[in-house]
Amino acid sequence: MSHNSFGHLFRVTTFGESHGPAIGCVVDGCPPGLPLVEDDIQIFLDRRRPGQNRFMTQRQEADKVKILSGVFEDAQTGGQVTTGTPIALLIENTDQRSKDYEAIKDVYRPGHADYVYDAKYGVRDYRGGGRSSARETASRVAAGAVARKIIASVKIRGALVQMGPHKIDRAHWDWEEVDKNPFFCPDAAAARFFETYLDGVRKAGSSIGAVIEIVAENAPAGWGAPIYGKLDSEIAAALMSINAVKGVEIGEGFAAAELSGEDNADEMRSGNEGKPIFLSNHAGGVLGGISTGQPIVARFAVKPTSSILKPRQSIDRFGRESEIVTKGRHDPCVGIRAVPVGEAMVACVLADQFLRHRGQVGSGPAWPFPA
Amino acid sequence: MSHNSFGHLFRVTTFGESHGPAIGCVVDGCPPGLPLVEDDIQIFLDRRRPGQNRFMTQRQEADKVKILSGVFEDAQTGGQVTTGTPIALLIENTDQRSKDYEAIKDVYRPGHADYVYDAKYGVRDYRGGGRSSARETASRVAAGAVARKIIASVKIRGALVQMGPHKIDRAHWDWEEVDKNPFFCPDAAAARFFETYLDGVRKAGSSIGAVIEIVAENAPAGWGAPIYGKLDSEIAAALMSINAVKGVEIGEGFAAAELSGEDNADEMRSGNEGKPIFLSNHAGGVLGGISTGQPIVARFAVKPTSSILKPRQSIDRFGRESEIVTKGRHDPCVGIRAVPVGEAMVACVLADQFLRHRGQVGSGPAWPFPA
Amino acid sequence: MSHNSFGHLFRVTTFGESHGPAIGCVVDGCPPGLPLVEDDIQIFLDRRRPGQNRFMTQRQEADKVKILSGVFEDAQTGGQVTTGTPIALLIENTDQRSKDYEAIKDVYRPGHADYVYDAKYGVRDYRGGGRSSARETASRVAAGAVARKIIASVKIRGALVQMGPHKIDRAHWDWEEVDKNPFFCPDAAAARFFETYLDGVRKAGSSIGAVIEIVAENAPAGWGAPIYGKLDSEIAAALMSINAVKGVEIGEGFAAAELSGEDNADEMRSGNEGKPIFLSNHAGGVLGGISTGQPIVARFAVKPTSSILKPRQSIDRFGRESEIVTKGRHDPCVGIRAVPVGEAMVACVLADQFLRHRGQVGSGPAWPFPA
Amino acid sequence: MSHNSFGHLFRVTTFGESHGPAIGCVVDGCPPGLPLVEDDIQIFLDRRRPGQNRFMTQRQEADKVKILSGVFEDAQTGGQVTTGTPIALLIENTDQRSKDYEAIKDVYRPGHADYVYDAKYGVRDYRGGGRSSARETASRVAAGAVARKIIASVKIRGALVQMGPHKIDRAHWDWEEVDKNPFFCPDAAAARFFETYLDGVRKAGSSIGAVIEIVAENAPAGWGAPIYGKLDSEIAAALMSINAVKGVEIGEGFAAAELSGEDNADEMRSGNEGKPIFLSNHAGGVLGGISTGQPIVARFAVKPTSSILKPRQSIDRFGRESEIVTKGRHDPCVGIRAVPVGEAMVACVLADQFLRHRGQVGSGPAWPFPA
Repeated sequence: MSHNSFGHLFRVTTFGESHGPAIGCVVDGCPPGLPLVEDDIQIFLDRRRPGQNRFMTQRQEADKVKILSGVFEDAQTGGQVTTGTPIALLIENTDQRSKDYEAIKDVYRPGHADYVYDAKYGVRDYRGGGRSSARETASRVAAGAVARKIIASVKIRGALVQMGPHKIDRAHWDWEEVDKNPFFCPDAAAARFFETYLDGVRKAGSSIGAVIEIVAENAPAGWGAPIYGKLDSEIAAALMSINAVKGVEIGEGFAAAELSGEDNADEMRSGNEGKPIFLSNHAGGVLGGISTGQPIVARFAVKPTSSILKPRQSIDRFGRESEIVTKGRHDPCVGIRAVPVGEAMVACVLADQFLRHRGQVGSGPAWPFPA
Repeated sequence: MSHNSFGHLFRVTTFGESHGPAIGCVVDGCPPGLPLVEDDIQIFLDRRRPGQNRFMTQRQEADKVKILSGVFEDAQTGGQVTTGTPIALLIENTDQRSKDYEAIKDVYRPGHADYVYDAKYGVRDYRGGGRSSARETASRVAAGAVARKIIASVKIRGALVQMGPHKIDRAHWDWEEVDKNPFFCPDAAAARFFETYLDGVRKAGSSIGAVIEIVAENAPAGWGAPIYGKLDSEIAAALMSINAVKGVEIGEGFAAAELSGEDNADEMRSGNEGKPIFLSNHAGGVLGGISTGQPIVARFAVKPTSSILKPRQSIDRFGRESEIVTKGRHDPCVGIRAVPVGEAMVACVLADQFLRHRGQVGSGPAWPFPA
Repeated sequence: MSHNSFGHLFRVTTFGESHGPAIGCVVDGCPPGLPLVEDDIQIFLDRRRPGQNRFMTQRQEADKVKILSGVFEDAQTGGQVTTGTPIALLIENTDQRSKDYEAIKDVYRPGHADYVYDAKYGVRDYRGGGRSSARETASRVAAGAVARKIIASVKIRGALVQMGPHKIDRAHWDWEEVDKNPFFCPDAAAARFFETYLDGVRKAGSSIGAVIEIVAENAPAGWGAPIYGKLDSEIAAALMSINAVKGVEIGEGFAAAELSGEDNADEMRSGNEGKPIFLSNHAGGVLGGISTGQPIVARFAVKPTSSILKPRQSIDRFGRESEIVTKGRHDPCVGIRAVPVGEAMVACVLADQFLRHRGQVGSGPAWPFPA
Repeated sequence: MSHNSFGHLFRVTTFGESHGPAIGCVVDGCPPGLPLVEDDIQIFLDRRRPGQNRFMTQRQEADKVKILSGVFEDAQTGGQVTTGTPIALLIENTDQRSKDYEAIKDVYRPGHADYVYDAKYGVRDYRGGGRSSARETASRVAAGAVARKIIASVKIRGALVQMGPHKIDRAHWDWEEVDKNPFFCPDAAAARFFETYLDGVRKAGSSIGAVIEIVAENAPAGWGAPIYGKLDSEIAAALMSINAVKGVEIGEGFAAAELSGEDNADEMRSGNEGKPIFLSNHAGGVLGGISTGQPIVARFAVKPTSSILKPRQSIDRFGRESEIVTKGRHDPCVGIRAVPVGEAMVACVLADQFLRHRGQVGSGPAWPFPA
């Protein structure tokens, strides 16, 4: 057990506080021989990096990653590859403004983890939220970049599908659009709307929630470890562990409660080599905790940023009542930057499940079986 | 890592197939000195037991639990108590009708785990779903009964809050009603409606989904182990691991995506000994992965039973196409019996988090701190 | 973390007390498709079974194992195979004489775990040592039989190499002899001597210690997970966890402290396909925590049975002084029956390391590498 | 499971190679509120630091530790304390001479892990042994310093008790001597002898093994988690995981095999508050895997350094035969610097067991029990 680790054969341990000298992680269990240089990781960190536009916190962090261990030149190719030993990744903090937080040193911000960290530990690094800051998710994105190397044939993409009460139009879904707007939104029209909408939220000193969808394609049937290491169970844990996430669903999710058995079950026809062709994907690619070979579809709900300029009632650590306004630099919709984080978490879960499957089952049984 | 275990300091390992000689579990890490007899467990198993009314599978299982280890007479009181050693619980299967399943020996039932077990393992016990049967959840309920002993002051209750598209009226919520109707429904009027509604579903040879809500009261602030052992993350994994569950949410859940920061954050006033009184509970009792002291509120969506009498298109393990009708004895709304299972899973997570908290933090810091 | 489990991908959880209704274990992570019937396990249990001759406890236990889950008929062959789901194994206790233990209900037997269980848990099952009884090792032997199926090409054998101060003559080592005498002794002459020697010990109401050696042949180079899952580290933990074991060594073991670097290092010459031929095996088949391909050699020291007829000074749980004589049925040299237990533990460690290696590294890199 | 982590509630993950930019570790699960500054760790690192005298490798490493996370100023005292979040410790490598290792880039040094890393991973960082270098143990010593804070009342000390075939005279054991000679030797006369003896070994271009003893005093009765988290089992794993260790024993260890039951069992008399006074400590402070309250005594054997100037036969990774002389800077008796490492490992195991015990059993039962 480790409170700050996740995964099993592919195991990630993160560390660091928002305003400490650095954050980072140790990625353990990565197979040897995979090409890995810092740029392979940086490209994903850059997607999550703060300060890129007015819809993100204005904290300026380069989020430059350093690989401290676990790679070496390959004797054959001369290129840098993983060695099977732990990969330590370090990201230095460079733009802390701890003074911004002096005012909330003793006060508990509503919706934040301030009070519970004190209730649990009796001491906390209040600067920028300390360990509970969303800054920790940079380590996850870095680890996710390594995970992607392991399951290179699996395509893992995320998108914002709802902001506040406004859902995108799924008929207009275009993955190409996702990187063309500041919201990771796959619907160009919705993205234009969000721009105006979120400007309003931001200017009002408020914030708003969002729903993110992650889709992983090309994972074969058979990944997942029932009963308590189910693929969907681990995805749920991984996504729910992201800051501000309050709900997770797979495939139809909560909508499945409204369906009849005949409407929800995905019928099968015979495809290549007798493998099934599913006629629908209500299951979101997971049955019995095991991947079906269809796209794995997960969604998660992110609550609105708790740090807002509107005054709220609270107490301080001495039990004194006060009114609080959270200054500092914050995301008006923290769900946006949760997109690359969600992708990374799903990548880590899948890489881990792949290795575990390979460990227990090997290359897997032949299918369909000889008649 | 164990695929069939969950929890850390309080750790449960389950085993058994639907039509094998027995199912059961080993509960490891239970503290010593807790009174525990078979009846303490049986009372919860009886709530989940099949065959009690027409809204459940007609399989007749007594589900009698035997304690095989881990208890002994207390030298002081003479009563039977836990000893700190593993508690093995055995439930014999007595009403298997394996012949019912000969017909689906080679065919993959849509919505079931049949295909993926074959794809993963190359062999499976097809009788009654084997390991993937909801029968496995009896072991969870048994373990949950032990967990409740550890955190005896925490009140954990569950209720069915939605069946198909029909939500209960929360204004009529009455916990007393839950055990008075066959649906664990806290709204008497809704329960009457569900009776007619589910009869219609059942007679049509169909099935329907449901949403369950679990509420845990009196857990103190401070339980939960950030970052990757967060209380809500572990509840999400635990609930998502239950058969047929497709979504999990905490507090406002997916509705939080629609809220503004000021509407979602739970304001605080000063209460006893300086502890906070929260003015709302949008967070569902968890912030930053740690309990706030407010009721912990989790909901999960259960898909409709996949075993239905309506014919569906499928294939068999040789890749041949066929049409399938699932006979046998099934729950028209498997979400109903998921209520005691959900309670048990939350009980296990909380017991585990309590022990882990006690391990790392001890009895906890004084609060509020001396000024 | 589980106090009563060991292994990772191949994971065993044991339960049960000496005089409870049953003992047993759950074996999780066993790959699917391996032929497994009860006789495959019984054959190993029979080697460890008590009451077979006068050099063992006279407790009469059939130690009949039942497989409760995790196996099913193979669709191709019709034979029973593992399914990849947890294998629960049950061994009922049938010859408890709990009355023998009434006298020591409150008294702490020197050298036993009586006092420490009370100091830790405040309650204990005193009958036959309860959970701390060597009876628990039957579960290990059962699990070891499953482990052997996974790594069928690895030959794992054990032998008693020392009893009291008397070491066997290694020049006379003959594996064939091991099953021909009641001591698992590979030296026929030594076995004859031990018969007379142990009779003397037994008749004096005393007991004596022993040293056991386990040899695993044909494990390929590459198993073991540095740094903290080293093959030798895990073997050490596994063997030290056996009742009464006080020392473990690999290869030269403690004798390595006396060697020079040039005498200890195993030189290499080029063998088949460029693989090394080692000119010696001081390392005992493990370097840097990874198998070398040479035989893996581990030894462990078993202390003398603490239950003896000679009176010893002790106290009871009320702090009162007393003199104690342990009646009941005991092994005069518990090290003898530790031989099949040691074999089983090494088998479990190797099976686990094999699966973990397969998970992280796959089928392994080609070797030697193309020039 | 993590190959590069150890411990459970107190969990340490190490990373880094001998000639990479840095080594370090993440310490997870440390309780909050413990005073911790870099000097608390540095003092232990300095004991293990290379280059301090002619009996150590001449590599000059300052081994300066940086705390990257997990500490903050205490609101009461203003002093720096642990916060309950992960403590990342970084030690930069500053005196690598990688060129020394070009010669052995492709050759496998006998007694080293070179060959097995290649056999396992197919790629390795050959510079200074890479991950398999004893340099990794600096991270253990740093973690051990944190562990000591948790169990501050437990006194953990180590000493070299044998070098080559030469054992110290236990009648002359004086803990004060340990830090007065370069061998951590508690026998002043033996230390003087070792100086001459090891000079001879060193000048001959050879090396020699050693035996180390670790003693932990003042641990209360009750620590240890039977059956598979036994205190002695975990100490065995921890010590065996140290580079070059080939044997571990507790209390009498292998000598227990030669003892009779009456000579080996530690008799008890009644002491304060009815607690036992043991008349001997053959058990080495552990019975049934649980601490007895007596000093915990563990010994481990360290093989001679494999890197020697004497030529040895070997092969390279292409299967070609060669003769090898290991240049570079090496310890003639690597067992010496294993003393602080062994202490650290025992400290980590005890801290972990303390937290686990506190978690499962709480503050522990009263003892002796009311009559």
